[in-house]
Order: sequence, then structure tokens, then C-alpha cells
Amino acid sequence: MKFVLAPDSFKESMTAKKAALAMEKGVKAVFPHAECVIVPMADGGEGTVESLVSMTNGEIIKTEVIGPLGEKVIAEYGLLGEGQTAVIEMASASGLELITPKERNPLLTTTYGTGQLIKHALDKGVRRFLIGIGGSATNDGGAGMLQALGVSFKDQDENELPFGGGALHRLHSIDMSGLDKRIKTVQMDVACDVTNPLIGDNGASAIFGPQKGATTEMVRILDQNLAHFADVIKTQLGEDIAHLDGAGAAGGLGAGLLAFLNAHLKKGIDLVIEYTGLEEQVKEADYVFTGEGSIDGQTLFGKTPYGVAAIAEKYSVPVIAFAGRIGNGVESLYDNGFTAIIGILKGVTTLEEALECGEENLAFAAENVCRVLKL
Amino acid sequence: MKFVLAPDSFKESMTAKKAALAMEKGVKAVFPHAECVIVPMADGGEGTVESLVSMTNGEIIKTEVIGPLGEKVIAEYGLLGEGQTAVIEMASASGLELITPKERNPLLTTTYGTGQLIKHALDKGVRRFLIGIGGSATNDGGAGMLQALGVSFKDQDENELPFGGGALHRLHSIDMSGLDKRIKTVQMDVACDVTNPLIGDNGASAIFGPQKGATTEMVRILDQNLAHFADVIKTQLGEDIAHLDGAGAAGGLGAGLLAFLNAHLKKGIDLVIEYTGLEEQVKEADYVFTGEGSIDGQTLFGKTPYGVAAIAEKYSVPVIAFAGRIGNGVESLYDNGFTAIIGILKGVTTLEEALECGEENLAFAAENVCRVLKL
Repeated sequence: MKFVLAPDSFKESMTAKKAALAMEKGVKAVFPHAECVIVPMADGGEGTVESLVSMTNGEIIKTEVIGPLGEKVIAEYGLLGEGQTAVIEMASASGLELITPKERNPLLTTTYGTGQLIKHALDKGVRRFLIGIGGSATNDGGAGMLQALGVSFKDQDENELPFGGGALHRLHSIDMSGLDKRIKTVQMDVACDVTNPLIGDNGASAIFGPQKGATTEMVRILDQNLAHFADVIKTQLGEDIAHLDGAGAAGGLGAGLLAFLNAHLKKGIDLVIEYTGLEEQVKEADYVFTGEGSIDGQTLFGKTPYGVAAIAEKYSVPVIAFAGRIGNGVESLYDNGFTAIIGILKGVTTLEEALECGEENLAFAAENVCRVLKL
Repeated sequence: MKFVLAPDSFKESMTAKKAALAMEKGVKAVFPHAECVIVPMADGGEGTVESLVSMTNGEIIKTEVIGPLGEKVIAEYGLLGEGQTAVIEMASASGLELITPKERNPLLTTTYGTGQLIKHALDKGVRRFLIGIGGSATNDGGAGMLQALGVSFKDQDENELPFGGGALHRLHSIDMSGLDKRIKTVQMDVACDVTNPLIGDNGASAIFGPQKGATTEMVRILDQNLAHFADVIKTQLGEDIAHLDGAGAAGGLGAGLLAFLNAHLKKGIDLVIEYTGLEEQVKEADYVFTGEGSIDGQTLFGKTPYGVAAIAEKYSVPVIAFAGRIGNGVESLYDNGFTAIIGILKGVTTLEEALECGEENLAFAAENVCRVLKL
């Protein structure tokens, strides 16, 4: 009997790996001889590096890079166990959480540090990248990242543009000659769950600018600047990225990745499934357990348990999902690969205590579901 | 496929019947053609009348009787659907909740009203009694109940004793000639989960007197009086009840029932199982669902879910128990007929909201367990 245990993290309670281990404890209490395959999951956002690194016995690499406002920060990325794959969350180098709310200013913030992480990984021999782009502090179209990788963005006077989306209106020419040669030979996957275009009312600046500190006037400037950025790219590189789905993700970092680094934008959960090899494991499983801190009708929109369930459904493997909170609309999950949804709480409790007892509660619930499965 | 749905009430949230109906809703969502037998349970205490009446489509009979302190109260009992069985909770006529804490005085309180309820039921043609004796305000050895049924307790001057355990030391002779003749022909079952004897350190007065308002001095008097009561009974009726298990229940009401009414004391849950005919239903069931507001290691000591599980175990029918709160020590239930124990909460919530959403949560949990059963 084979169980695949593929939960996301239960936020603030347990990492995906700890959740999977708690499930295993429950399963083993009932089926001591069952095979339990631990596949800690994530959705391409927070926790993705940790899940993939822990699953592959990889390592976390820390290195100093330039932060969103030009300051030095220690950023990190994951090097998977086979040594040729890097998992980078751009927020680690260029994220909103690295600066104070008062410092937020997308006219100035840069993705340079993200480019440095990519370069650092290339130096380690990495051939495949999974880039998570949530939580960015930037609106520079990825220009900073590209500068770190050797692309030169020049103004009319042949001077290199300074950092930040606020300078892009001065872009006159792009010099690709310095781009790190290794980029052409690597696979660059970007976990991207938004479809916003680079510019316009639904674009990077209008939709995500305000949360990064942009005023209405700044949004207008940033949007114009990205439009100019796209124009120059179109003229000089022949790539029309202004309206591509996802180009507006992470302040236009999506556009930079698409136009310059030949990246593929995919749903985060699909990439994590690919990188974990989940499908191979699920194929031969008798049962799949998944879960997340909270499950509700929104789970169908790109959340980890749904991605896991979709894979399992392909092979008609039943999926049981565990959650600390079961919200409205979960009934819709039954038609989408979920066999059952099980709450793990043992009684009325404070949130604090519920988070603290997550592993114990999940192990208990998993055990009791197994006791029913055994019938 | 046959499900027996036999929960106790989830206190302050739903009656046993409502809980069973919620379970049914969950079962029917997955197995629309399954047979669901609703057996609302109880443990012989609070809720027993309601469960048995609702199960048999019986009725609640209300009648005026003499309360614990001689005042008039409206008490009630259940007449089961077949019309020949009464379920009486003595607390309805002679209970602690009928008087204020200040009024509590077991020297004075009487079980007379309980006797009146029995008489009322006899007049209705009842042939079988299930008497619940929890929550009594009395310490009169059942003398009041017996007086209501025609027994005469006289002092040296041939005067009838007044109400209350405080008068029993004056008992000189017992006249059985007036005892209602119908008593000899009926079955009298008493739900009794305690084994305390009538007198002594572990007796009615010492153990239960204080919660009924007895001071240390009163406990001493009450215990002496019950000892005298037992002596007279032994001398005149030839019955030695002083040290029988359960004789001390409900202020010695147990003794009165044993000595005068030929009653049988049994565990509450066992009587409820007998009166509901649960065993006949469980025998042919595929699954038994039970549950209670709270389940923990103590559930093994006479609680409803354990009684249900014990019956199901006899016929190797799996039992799944649902609870709002799962406490410590539930693992011990696995070896005692419980297949699985399932918490019904959907997330962190207040107690108030949890109680309010009981039916919805139970139906959801039952449905999801059925979805696992269906695999």
C-alpha cells in the first residue's frame, strides 16, 4: 500500500515537510508497513524554496546582494539535491519585506539583487531555474535583474540608467552584448499566477504599484515608463511584450524574464509539481493526502491542494485533504478530484493553540482517516 | 447498506435526535439509497426522556406534583409510543434545579413528587418504568416517593412522618398495606451509574449530601437517620439494603426503589440500549455512527458512545464516533469497539459559534467520513 503525502505548509503552524511527517505518523499508526512518500509542496510562493530543498536534501545558499534600494542584504536561494537546479524567490533579494513601509518607492526600487542570485547560481553550475516572483518591492520591468546579468540600458548620452522604474523613460538603447552567455543554455521557469499585462489599466503599475508605495501620480509615471521600456524592446529586440499575459507580474519582472531570458511563465503549483516529480509518485499511489492551513472554494484557483488533486484525478487516485480551517464553498472540490476534506481541530481553542498543536492534530486526523480507510 | 445513527446529545448544541438527523444528512449526501436508522441515545441522565420519546413518537406528559420542599411544581415524564412505558427523570419532580441554592436542605426535601409521577403513569396504564435518578435534591431514602404510592411511615405515636430525611430517625413502623397494588405487576428499571451504599463514609449522605446543601452536622444526622431507616426495613420487611450497591444513589432513593418497588438498578446506558432496541438494529448494520459533545478517555466509564460501541463490537460492526471536543486518552477507545474518532469543528471559533453550528459541522464531517467509506 502506497501513500503519497503532499501537503502545502500550514501557515504559521508547520512547514510542508513537517505536515507531511505528521501525516506519515498517522498513517504508520494504522498501516505500519505502508510505503509513505513525502512530497512537501508549495504553490510557487513563500515556502517553495524550503519545500523543494527539504524534499531533495538540497541546501540553502546565502549570499550578499544589492537590495531593493541599493543597500546590501543577505539573500538566499535553494540549490536542489542534484546540484543543477536553483529555486529562487525574488522577494529574498528584491522583496517588499526588506524595506520599511516608509521606504517603499517603486520609482527607485530595483530587481538587481535577483539578477545577482541568478548569476551566483550560474557560477555554481546550475542549469535549471525555478523563479518565484511574489512579494516584489519593484516596478522596474526587470531592468535591474538584467543589468546584474550584463545587459546594459543606456540613455541618450550613453550613460547607464540608474536603478528603479522611475528612470526607464530615459532608456535610449539596449546593449545585450554583455549578457551572461550561460543564460542561453539554461531552463528558466517562472512561477506566475497572475495574468496581468505589462502596461495599462490592468498592468503592473496600476494594479500592483500602490501596494509598493506608488501614489496615483507615480503610477501614471511608472506606467508610461514601462510603456517606453516595451517600445524600445520592441524596436531593438523585436519582442512585443507589452500585452503578454503575466508580463506585468512583479512590477514587470515578468516582461524582463520573457523578453531577455527566454523564460517560461507557468502556474506556481504546476512548476512545483514538475520539480518535485509528484506525478511519477502519484501514478502508483493508492492514496494521496494533501492539505493546507485553510481550504475553501478558492482552493480551486491555483492553490496547492487543488494542483495535487488534479494530478491524482488523472490516475484515479483518491485524495484526502486536511485543513485547520474549512471555509465556504468546499463542496465544489468534490467534483475536482477531492475525495474528502477533513478538519484537524480537536475542539474549541485559540488560534495560537491551534497553530501550536498543528502537528499533533494533523497526525491524529490522518490516523483516524486511515482507520476508516482500513475498513 | 445500513447505517445506525446513535449519538447522544451534543450538550448545549443539539439534542440526540438532531445530531442523528445531521448524521443522516451527511450519509444521504454520499449514499442516497442507504438505510439510516435513527436511534437518539442518552445515558440515563438528562436527555433520556427526550431521546426515547422522540424515537418512539411518544409524548411528554406534564402534571402538577409536590416539589422537593412541598411546593407545587409542574413536572413531566415521557410516555413512549407504544403507550405502556414511562420514562421518568426524578429531577423533574424532586430535583435540585427546582429550588434555589439557599433553599437547599436535605433534612426537609422529599421525593414525594417522584412517587406521584409513578402513580400518574400507572393510571395511564404504564407497565414498564425507566427511572432516571440524577440531579436529586433529596436525602430521604425514597420515603416520600413511597408515601405517594401508599406506603405509610409512622412514628411511635402512629403519626405519619413528615417529609424529609431529617424525620427518618422517628420511624417506628412501616405499613405496606396501602401500597398501590399495580406496583407488583410492573417492571421497574432504574438508571444508576453509581455504586454508593446507603450509609457510611461512602454513602448517600456523606458523598452527595453536601452538594444538596448539607452541612457536616447535617450529613451526620442524615446518615444516622438512613441507618435507622435501613434497620427498620430490615426488621420489619426482612430486606437488608444498607450496603447494596447503588442503594445510596439519589439520597437513598435507590434503597427505597430496591426494598419496596422490586426495582432493578442498571447502568443508564445499558437501559437506554435496552429500551431503544439498539442491539436489534446494530446486529444487521454495516456501520454505526455515534457521538457526543465531548469524547475522551473518560468515555469508557459509562458514557453513551462507549455503550453503543460495546454493542456494535459484539457484532463486529465498525463504529465511528464524532465529537465537538476530542480530549486526552481517546486512544484507549480504539481497543474498545471504536474504529475512528472524528472531530467536527471546521476551524478556530468561539464556543458559542461552535455550539450554534453543531448540526452543520456534524453533517459535514459525517459526509466526508462517508466519502472515505465509499472508497
